Amino acid sequence: MGIENLMEPSNIKWISSPGPDSDIVISSRVRLARNINDIPFPHLLPEQEAKTIIKNVHETLRADANLGQNIELYNMAELPEEHKILLSEMHLISPDLASSKNGAVIVNQDETISIMINEEDHLRIQVMLPGLQLDEAFKEIDKIDDLLEAKLDFAFDEKIGYLTACPTNVGTGMRASVMMHLPVLTMMDQMGQIFATISQVGLVVRGIYGEGSQAKGNLYQISNQITLGKSEEDIIQNVMGVTRQILMSERKIRENLSGEARVRLEDRILRSYGILTNAKIISSQEALAYISDVKLGVDMGIIKDLEPLVLNSLFITTGPAYIQGISNTEMSPVERDLYRADFIRQKIRK
Amino acid sequence: MGIENLMEPSNIKWISSPGPDSDIVISSRVRLARNINDIPFPHLLPEQEAKTIIKNVHETLRADANLGQNIELYNMAELPEEHKILLSEMHLISPDLASSKNGAVIVNQDETISIMINEEDHLRIQVMLPGLQLDEAFKEIDKIDDLLEAKLDFAFDEKIGYLTACPTNVGTGMRASVMMHLPVLTMMDQMGQIFATISQVGLVVRGIYGEGSQAKGNLYQISNQITLGKSEEDIIQNVMGVTRQILMSERKIRENLSGEARVRLEDRILRSYGILTNAKIISSQEALAYISDVKLGVDMGIIKDLEPLVLNSLFITTGPAYIQGISNTEMSPVERDLYRADFIRQKIRK
Repeated sequence: MGIENLMEPSNIKWISSPGPDSDIVISSRVRLARNINDIPFPHLLPEQEAKTIIKNVHETLRADANLGQNIELYNMAELPEEHKILLSEMHLISPDLASSKNGAVIVNQDETISIMINEEDHLRIQVMLPGLQLDEAFKEIDKIDDLLEAKLDFAFDEKIGYLTACPTNVGTGMRASVMMHLPVLTMMDQMGQIFATISQVGLVVRGIYGEGSQAKGNLYQISNQITLGKSEEDIIQNVMGVTRQILMSERKIRENLSGEARVRLEDRILRSYGILTNAKIISSQEALAYISDVKLGVDMGIIKDLEPLVLNSLFITTGPAYIQGISNTEMSPVERDLYRADFIRQKIRK
Repeated sequence: MGIENLMEPSNIKWISSPGPDSDIVISSRVRLARNINDIPFPHLLPEQEAKTIIKNVHETLRADANLGQNIELYNMAELPEEHKILLSEMHLISPDLASSKNGAVIVNQDETISIMINEEDHLRIQVMLPGLQLDEAFKEIDKIDDLLEAKLDFAFDEKIGYLTACPTNVGTGMRASVMMHLPVLTMMDQMGQIFATISQVGLVVRGIYGEGSQAKGNLYQISNQITLGKSEEDIIQNVMGVTRQILMSERKIRENLSGEARVRLEDRILRSYGILTNAKIISSQEALAYISDVKLGVDMGIIKDLEPLVLNSLFITTGPAYIQGISNTEMSPVERDLYRADFIRQKIRK
């Protein structure tokens, strides 16, 4: 299993499989920050010790009956630049890890699990699932955490919990987040109020691509800001509850659209469909906006006979590094924009 | 034959029939200004005398074996506002005639001939033909001129020629013009230079919809500015010669487009096609721009299986009054924009 395998779109389980409410909640993600006792944090860690951590984590996971056969280790120092950008586009590593020389990542075959090693913390364990299933993601990550904790001595304080490089992660070391597609709330200028309301319950919302109201593709990440003083279960339930409220607002406002407002939206959606099915050249940023419109059209029943999950996948598979990867040739930006337009046409033409 | 008959798109011969070079030269038009001797110009003309002119012109034409059965007289005072706007959109009357209470127009069945009565001059005779055939249009208009001159005493001075209300028309009283579709010269910012060059040979170019470089639909009218001191034949040959030069420039620049410039143009054309075949609501101004792109696509072979003349017709048949007319119901602007989008989709979807 190499990078090529990761790039098979049907393998990206967290975005190409159905999940609860996956029309609006694209994916759920839980991440744990963990560090090994009595070893310096990664930014002060000698290369040899960094390698030892990678080796220990890898061996522990390889020894597991379930995970063992399905994982791959990628050392950042050995990866070509384009593969690092690809892993970052696929939400499997952070840009910080990509630029660290002692970093590594372990990814499972369906890309639901990623374990970054020697990023800001020794370990950043992540589980991503399609739709709204933070609770399921937590169950899965808890098992991996137990598996690793049985072999590695995690830095833990009885009073405050897990110790982390940055104090904002101390305690549970957990970040629970969902990726939501909120085109109609965005169109109706409701996101500003949601940003404000959400921060009062200790959550934060940001655009996946670009901040705030400039969010490209109308994709937002909602996550907990506080990791200390709350149990993991409370955090999960808090994020899920707020997500359900936003989800219902988006649904309701879609259903209640009528008259000229609805006609104007249908027009925008259908034009975007016309552009995506005909354009010869398209940038990834521009594609995001049209994919968002077409996805909304499919979800609202305005565009028929198109598989909704195809649109979810396109959010990821139209990224520059992904397009570069599937084309299997070195391309200039213009060539990539040509290839992307062709790729999208093939995916969504009925 | 009433207004409804005029609105049958296949009857608009000057735009829906093939003609020489009608890919780029949409139509050719010759217009003659004529006035009756010893009668005040229309702006000073008593109602009764105005009516007499209308009657005399109408009777003269009705008596002709060829034209007699194929013409219809419309008195402006009796026409509803929307029908006047329609005739204006169809290039059969001027806005000035529409607002004159003593004005009338005689139109033949295929809309190639229009004779405005009591506009600025007593008579404004117009012949329009598809493609580049100013010479043919002149032959036709010359016959009508002879027919009328045999019965009516035209104001004519041996030295200076036909007398007209405005001195800019004195002499031949003739304006010869072509309507050209010049999207690539426009895109390449060449129109400014053409404007300048053309004025040196006594011609003038202006946008059909909007002036100068803002020309909507990339449609331009090229016509003679001088009516005095030149023969009719010289004027016709001058306009035809310059038209052929511009035509060749537009053709050459299309053929020579290559590399990224061509790809970007193909992309624009295909997106416009995607929008026109999918939009649910569209204004006439916006439609003009996309129709221009799609027409260019058809003419360049980028869009196949679409009848080129359908696009030429759409330049006229997407106008607000035309859309209002074919829908046969009273519509708000939004309803009209919905109807227009639907009408265009039906015409160009393969």
